[in-house]
Amino acid sequence: MLPVDPKRFLEDLHALRRFGASGVGKGVARPGFSDEDIAARDWLAGRMSEAGLTPQFDPAGSLFGLAEGRSLLMGSHSDSQPEGGWLDGALGVVAALEVARASREAGGPPVSVVSFSDEEGRFGVTTGSSVWGGNQTLEGADALHDAQGVSFAEARARFGDRRGGFVDPSRFSGYVEMHIEQGPVLDTSGEKIGVVDAIVGIRDMHLSFTGQQNHAGTTPMHLRRDAFQALASFNAALNERFANVVTPQTVWTIGHVALHPNAASIVPGRARFSMQWRDGDADRLARMETIIRDTAAEIAAAHGMGLEFGSMLGLDPVTMDAGLRSALETAAEAEAPGNWRVMPSGALHDATNVARLMPVSMLFVPSIGGISHDFAEDTDEADLVTGLNTLARAVAALG
Amino acid sequence: MLPVDPKRFLEDLHALRRFGASGVGKGVARPGFSDEDIAARDWLAGRMSEAGLTPQFDPAGSLFGLAEGRSLLMGSHSDSQPEGGWLDGALGVVAALEVARASREAGGPPVSVVSFSDEEGRFGVTTGSSVWGGNQTLEGADALHDAQGVSFAEARARFGDRRGGFVDPSRFSGYVEMHIEQGPVLDTSGEKIGVVDAIVGIRDMHLSFTGQQNHAGTTPMHLRRDAFQALASFNAALNERFANVVTPQTVWTIGHVALHPNAASIVPGRARFSMQWRDGDADRLARMETIIRDTAAEIAAAHGMGLEFGSMLGLDPVTMDAGLRSALETAAEAEAPGNWRVMPSGALHDATNVARLMPVSMLFVPSIGGISHDFAEDTDEADLVTGLNTLARAVAALG
Repeated sequence: MLPVDPKRFLEDLHALRRFGASGVGKGVARPGFSDEDIAARDWLAGRMSEAGLTPQFDPAGSLFGLAEGRSLLMGSHSDSQPEGGWLDGALGVVAALEVARASREAGGPPVSVVSFSDEEGRFGVTTGSSVWGGNQTLEGADALHDAQGVSFAEARARFGDRRGGFVDPSRFSGYVEMHIEQGPVLDTSGEKIGVVDAIVGIRDMHLSFTGQQNHAGTTPMHLRRDAFQALASFNAALNERFANVVTPQTVWTIGHVALHPNAASIVPGRARFSMQWRDGDADRLARMETIIRDTAAEIAAAHGMGLEFGSMLGLDPVTMDAGLRSALETAAEAEAPGNWRVMPSGALHDATNVARLMPVSMLFVPSIGGISHDFAEDTDEADLVTGLNTLARAVAALG
Repeated sequence: MLPVDPKRFLEDLHALRRFGASGVGKGVARPGFSDEDIAARDWLAGRMSEAGLTPQFDPAGSLFGLAEGRSLLMGSHSDSQPEGGWLDGALGVVAALEVARASREAGGPPVSVVSFSDEEGRFGVTTGSSVWGGNQTLEGADALHDAQGVSFAEARARFGDRRGGFVDPSRFSGYVEMHIEQGPVLDTSGEKIGVVDAIVGIRDMHLSFTGQQNHAGTTPMHLRRDAFQALASFNAALNERFANVVTPQTVWTIGHVALHPNAASIVPGRARFSMQWRDGDADRLARMETIIRDTAAEIAAAHGMGLEFGSMLGLDPVTMDAGLRSALETAAEAEAPGNWRVMPSGALHDATNVARLMPVSMLFVPSIGGISHDFAEDTDEADLVTGLNTLARAVAALG
């Protein structure tokens, strides 16, 4: 195993937190391309240099710390949510830095480090790795705007002459990303490590039921075409029908509901709502889509509703590389014997985009209370070190 | 029967519509205390004078056309919704004017006319009749503000020196109000007249379920406390439990729903929603309240939710006077044999407030498509005349 230094690793993690430290606890506000994000990347570039890596900003603002020759790439992102925690992304970057540093010191395998830009999606979804992975062009990304109307082109220009060219992905043998789980599974089970088997695929679309807006006093129940009642019936039928198709890892959510006119005294004439479902198996996602469309059509007919489907966002599941995953599993068993699991990632990560370029794998450590995207996000430092050691052990084994 | 003149009645109704005529079809925009509302009341006062009635504006802006001595009071309101129709309120005022005029011409029983101010609630709920009925004080109403911040005190001052004192309710033997149904019952059945047995009571409150806001990708279904799912379960359980308690006239509505944070990718942590129910029987309203509170508590416990009940708006049902109602029923059978019904009023009307002062009754004519509070509101003119004739026949019989 590589001689990683837990103290140096945690000191770097706390040092990185100072850029944008805010809110309660260990909160951080370091959105992509903010002054804090740029300062943090300059600091990271300095630490990379000190570790013997060559820093290189790419045109999209992603920062690489390059080892010489062919290397394993490790990292994540160092931007945060507008109200985020100290570990989301930062953990993977600083752990990669420590593994790369320790490996270089020990004459181990060459490891490069990356902090992708705008993973948290000020301008889109995992913007920096999306451009690098070829999921969108730099010109396409330049046209994206944040909520305040700033374009990605303007934002990335803030990096000025730091920016070099794109890094050639063929210099990397694979990509390993450590991340906090951002969910309750490990925290609930007490397990220390999650080795990811797949980043789940997502389907997301809006549906609308359109009935008849009416006076809530003068319209008898049997003459109503109440769009909220249609939505509630749809939800109940869907939960029942999904039961035969889903696994314990499948999730689905109605998170956004807009009734019209949304007034206590008016029978709702329209209900527009989001339907999002995620699973590691693309076939299952498709079967669920069929059930959603069929059920919505049946409910619409039964309730006398018009029905519209919005456009569907679809991201396919990404399977982790068997070889990288196997190395992480062996290392996890050594560091936390019998106390780790294989699990899907329910959230998107930069690894999704990097998978277009090379084999990828991911490692999770627990999130206290399952909380993330919140100032309260945290993980026991002992668990962070267990994650670091697992990474180091896997990298050593991969040689 | 009194010799009412359908042509004169319809001409007056069309003449009144010219004040604020707007939108499509027979639309009207004549909110309380607008220039159009004041001009319409001045025109009405003139028509009252021509009919031998003495016009009197009260301090709240309600316009009475007083017959000499003790009289039957008839009327409704002549203000409209911001986007309203030509009949909501106006019909009852103009029909009353025609009946009063015809009765006076024929030496029939004395009939006074009223157009209450701000029935449509620019400043509250049925403001003019509410003050006259003693449901609120003039000073209390003066403190109410419309959506633009104008006070009721400022608005009623626009009537200037038109305003006299309050009219003594003891000069009236009772109150009869004709109104469009504003619902689909008569239009659906093809019946011409609805004699109201009660103006239903209303209960209205907001409830909140508070669960746990979570990431919609990383939170397994069995660890979720999804407030929308709790709301959907509550709705289903309530519909089932109400079945044993309600009548075909009972209505209940969830018309307002606010999820938090209301985003497709986030398990909703909170659902705040309206629950409104209406019935002619106060005991049934109370039984329904018990079911609502018990069901919400059970669902909250089953789903791990916090539960809050907002304050409850309660208006008790108002039973129509048996004598007045009987006269209307007899007249309805004469004018539309076998083609009328007894029915509750699901909407509030000025009669609710006047019932605090004297016996009241109401008569409905059909609303095409059940539509009201909309430019498209309308009724066949033949049905308007059937309503007028029914009123005239009842007044003659009441002597």
